[in-house]
Amino acid sequence: MTPESVLAAIDAGWQHAVDELAELLRIPSVSTDPSHTADVRRAAAWTVERLKRLGFQTTLHETSRHPVVYGELLQDPDLPTLLIYGHYDVQPPDPLDEWASPPFAPSVRDGFIYARGATDNKGQFFTYLKAIEAMVLVEGRLPLNVKALIEGEEEIGSPSLRSFFESHGDALRADAVAISDGSQFASGIPAITYGLRGLSYFQVDIQGPRFDLHSGSFGGVVANPVQVLADMLARLKRPDGTVAIPGFYDDVLDLEPWERQEMAALPFDEAQLRDYLGVETLVGEPGYTPTERKCARPTLDVNGIWGGFSGEGAKTVIPAKAGAKVSMRLVPRQRAATVDRLFEAFIRAQAPPGVEVRVTSIHGNDPVLIARDEPGVQAAARAIAIGFGRRPVFIREGGSIPIVTLFKDLLGYRNILLLGWGSPDDGAHSPNERFALEDFHRGIRSAAALLYELRTALGR
Amino acid sequence: MTPESVLAAIDAGWQHAVDELAELLRIPSVSTDPSHTADVRRAAAWTVERLKRLGFQTTLHETSRHPVVYGELLQDPDLPTLLIYGHYDVQPPDPLDEWASPPFAPSVRDGFIYARGATDNKGQFFTYLKAIEAMVLVEGRLPLNVKALIEGEEEIGSPSLRSFFESHGDALRADAVAISDGSQFASGIPAITYGLRGLSYFQVDIQGPRFDLHSGSFGGVVANPVQVLADMLARLKRPDGTVAIPGFYDDVLDLEPWERQEMAALPFDEAQLRDYLGVETLVGEPGYTPTERKCARPTLDVNGIWGGFSGEGAKTVIPAKAGAKVSMRLVPRQRAATVDRLFEAFIRAQAPPGVEVRVTSIHGNDPVLIARDEPGVQAAARAIAIGFGRRPVFIREGGSIPIVTLFKDLLGYRNILLLGWGSPDDGAHSPNERFALEDFHRGIRSAAALLYELRTALGR
Repeated sequence: MTPESVLAAIDAGWQHAVDELAELLRIPSVSTDPSHTADVRRAAAWTVERLKRLGFQTTLHETSRHPVVYGELLQDPDLPTLLIYGHYDVQPPDPLDEWASPPFAPSVRDGFIYARGATDNKGQFFTYLKAIEAMVLVEGRLPLNVKALIEGEEEIGSPSLRSFFESHGDALRADAVAISDGSQFASGIPAITYGLRGLSYFQVDIQGPRFDLHSGSFGGVVANPVQVLADMLARLKRPDGTVAIPGFYDDVLDLEPWERQEMAALPFDEAQLRDYLGVETLVGEPGYTPTERKCARPTLDVNGIWGGFSGEGAKTVIPAKAGAKVSMRLVPRQRAATVDRLFEAFIRAQAPPGVEVRVTSIHGNDPVLIARDEPGVQAAARAIAIGFGRRPVFIREGGSIPIVTLFKDLLGYRNILLLGWGSPDDGAHSPNERFALEDFHRGIRSAAALLYELRTALGR
Repeated sequence: MTPESVLAAIDAGWQHAVDELAELLRIPSVSTDPSHTADVRRAAAWTVERLKRLGFQTTLHETSRHPVVYGELLQDPDLPTLLIYGHYDVQPPDPLDEWASPPFAPSVRDGFIYARGATDNKGQFFTYLKAIEAMVLVEGRLPLNVKALIEGEEEIGSPSLRSFFESHGDALRADAVAISDGSQFASGIPAITYGLRGLSYFQVDIQGPRFDLHSGSFGGVVANPVQVLADMLARLKRPDGTVAIPGFYDDVLDLEPWERQEMAALPFDEAQLRDYLGVETLVGEPGYTPTERKCARPTLDVNGIWGGFSGEGAKTVIPAKAGAKVSMRLVPRQRAATVDRLFEAFIRAQAPPGVEVRVTSIHGNDPVLIARDEPGVQAAARAIAIGFGRRPVFIREGGSIPIVTLFKDLLGYRNILLLGWGSPDDGAHSPNERFALEDFHRGIRSAAALLYELRTALGR
């Protein structure tokens, strides 16, 4: 039972919590960009300070890049333990000129707070800290033991976390882990995610002539690296949009009939989605609904491409080199290592004479499925009903949370609670990222309820 | 007969001429870049000043972008008249990090002067001014009337020159026009160019969703603009490297058997070319030699491409937009207007659902063939023999000189003398552009001889 007084304290302090969140959002903790290393560290220090203020025993663990923040507030060895996972790093903000307000100058308008990291993930992990603050204020204690693991490398694939898990495995053990790094199914329809796609991310570089050439003098005698790259990218997909890499679909777990039924029952307004995206038509794999395609089917996307002249006007060059970022979203039973091998082999097999091709794996992680009947998962459903005023739907999500694979495979967690407080149109990774103030509020309430529900569900 | 005393004066002043050229090369007159507008004007002023010093009546003609420099030094209405054409604008210098010395800080080393514009075209048009300076010094007069037209928009396709020709046609009439804006066949093998390829240059823009999307949340439901662009570019070429646009080859004038024989007789060292370009193998249209392919066969090249994330590391976005610069080199009988239509229709026909496609023509010009038996062309051959110590070979060149079409079609010129003093490996449009000091010297001598030979060949 969640004490009404705790929820009342949350409601009373909610507006102030927005100001506190804005403080964290002002720190440009872009983990992929070496020029922001000091900013990433500032965000880590901010998080440490907040945990200490709540009474957590907190330490900053160095890695080869960005530190891991770990804290624990242990009440009683006989109580169950919840681990809260989040990340204080953010995606790069570019393209900058498409932001209505600067990405690191949080702006509250129309019921949203706009900033890079608002929903992914600063705003969401902060809900747990505010929930705990209310409990400390009202009750002077927590209903169970809490550990917090807030990392700074999630947006670059959590490269240091495996070794951190290996060396700190005992400290990280708990009866459940809560991760709020996704979103509701739709605004106002909260969800528990029981499936995640994996990721296999590459950079492909093509080197042609050793410098840019005049296309008049040399057009007709050398392979053009951009053309070679375009040819390769074109061959990665079939005309119907499916992935053409041999063996790519071999390990894909087909959707169960009941899953397809449940997905079909979820509210889905295609016209609204088209309108939000600004496209005339949705496009994707034949034979699957849009919901199925973005959650439970594997995909391949070019994330970026470059080469030659991109300025104003005309420059008649044959570029010396070209490159692209290409990634694949994987679904259960596919393995990142296997797909990595297939992709590399396919690209190398396409390399024509006259150029050098380099394929570099940037990162990868496996997809995940979580059993829906675990007691912690059911407790989370009850907590959300309290926080959001309605029962969650159960969904599979299209994104990847590399850490989940580690919790599952390395630490043996079964109660992995993926509870997104945000909304799918929050613009995570896009310009004008935002977080609805109402979702922030409901998230804090749900986080509080989760602690009490888990004590009941997992208590010995 | 070229007076020995004029050639001796040239030889005596040659080293000093390099310092004077460096002065002009220091001005970053990049015509395509609006931020360099004032620099382009400084280069124009420099040219005006030099012409005036030689006794030319000189005027600066304004256009909507960069001014045209026009001057005349008329001796006698009964003497033939030569028009000298050149351009004081240059290509952008990027990629900057590949220059061994800064592009606008001329550096003399190993017998070359390195700078953007060294060979294209500042170093080459300046040879005529130095030749005239020697005649003025030694003889006090020129052997014929000389007009000079030095423009500032060649590297952006000479957009103002057509209207300038239309309004100043009478002033621009002459018995021959000399253009040194190409190169010798190879270093030490001077050439007269009797054929030029044309150009059709486009920008293709693809707009997908209205902002960059998270590829986890939306991978599988939207068309990816980079993928769409890659598919289009791939379809522009056939697997054998020929252009796949329907009708593209319809108007191509086949090479005459005697032309193919002459081209085959030209010295050509494929291993040396591969080594210079840094490629393992040359690539191009089957059934034609490399020389034929780069001079007398049409080609298509992607000059640049962009879209999405190109930074370090990974960003899992579906880009909102992508774009490319694509250009085609055209050969005699092809018309830029026709090819423009074919290209636009082909691209539009490829546009798939879910994206918007914009095709923009950046510029175009027709290819050119010049009769080799014109008296002025033969006079030029004799002049080159004097300046370079060996007779020139006759070649067709792969590049475009838009102005030539105007001289031919608009003003009816027949003696269009395309006399490249540079070398094919000067790196025009590339990093580390250079001009051999020896070629600069031989160019000045040839320019002097040309004036005397033309007086004899074209005198009434």
